[in-house]
Amino acid sequence: MKKSPLHDALREAEKAFSHDEVPVGAVIVDALSGEIIASAHNEMETRHDSTAHAELLAIQQACTKKGRGRLEDCDLYVTLEPCPMCAQAISFARLRRLYFGAYDPKGGGVDHGAKIFNASSCHHSPEIVGGLEEQKCAQLLKEFFEKKRG
Amino acid sequence: MKKSPLHDALREAEKAFSHDEVPVGAVIVDALSGEIIASAHNEMETRHDSTAHAELLAIQQACTKKGRGRLEDCDLYVTLEPCPMCAQAISFARLRRLYFGAYDPKGGGVDHGAKIFNASSCHHSPEIVGGLEEQKCAQLLKEFFEKKRG
Repeated sequence: MKKSPLHDALREAEKAFSHDEVPVGAVIVDALSGEIIASAHNEMETRHDSTAHAELLAIQQACTKKGRGRLEDCDLYVTLEPCPMCAQAISFARLRRLYFGAYDPKGGGVDHGAKIFNASSCHHSPEIVGGLEEQKCAQLLKEFFEKKRG
Repeated sequence: MKKSPLHDALREAEKAFSHDEVPVGAVIVDALSGEIIASAHNEMETRHDSTAHAELLAIQQACTKKGRGRLEDCDLYVTLEPCPMCAQAISFARLRRLYFGAYDPKGGGVDHGAKIFNASSCHHSPEIVGGLEEQKCAQLLKEFFEKKRG
């Protein structure tokens, strides 16, 4: 059985963990070729940049690779429900599908909080599949925050 | 009378206009020194990146300059009401104040749409002043879209 690209996103999240970053990872897949065209993980600490979320970095990478701002034929896989900033970036990039792992009742902006894709002013919503590999994704975050609390 | 940094943001918006970008400009001011530490304008077309909004680029610049992700002692001036992506980025960056020019009923995420700072899951809201140099900011956008329509 072919593994879901969510597993590649999980590997990115593990890299984040090892760099002492909140362990969230994302990949973008070209739906036509099946190829992963962008891989990123949180780099807020490394870059000293509060906007350096996995999804935003992956979208910026994929746009550069494609040479265009719209990624209609691409799907994004991320280990955590995107925050409102990243959800809006997903909408702007016109991504075809969004697959995410763990739900984020506190910081999420898809099923929770600002619910970006439900706003009447939102011009594009991807197809959304949440809860993919939810346990593994959530477990990694749990371990990180337990370690942080000592 | 000292001119508001909103005028510097307007000059950035004019640069965007001349590069055939939607004319929105932003600057970030260090509130202690009064110095402008970041200036940016929309670069979605130039960078082929749908996330390259003036505010996001300015925040990334300011974070790099300060060497940290939080900009508590800084204020952001932007010619248009921020979209939900940029409003959330402003919240993450802990900016002290947000001054914006024109209101954006269609794409805004502060007074309109997702109203990011009003969401119960929003951990930081800046002080907000909207409608600063509103006419000049709106006029530039109007001219741009009239030119686009031919």
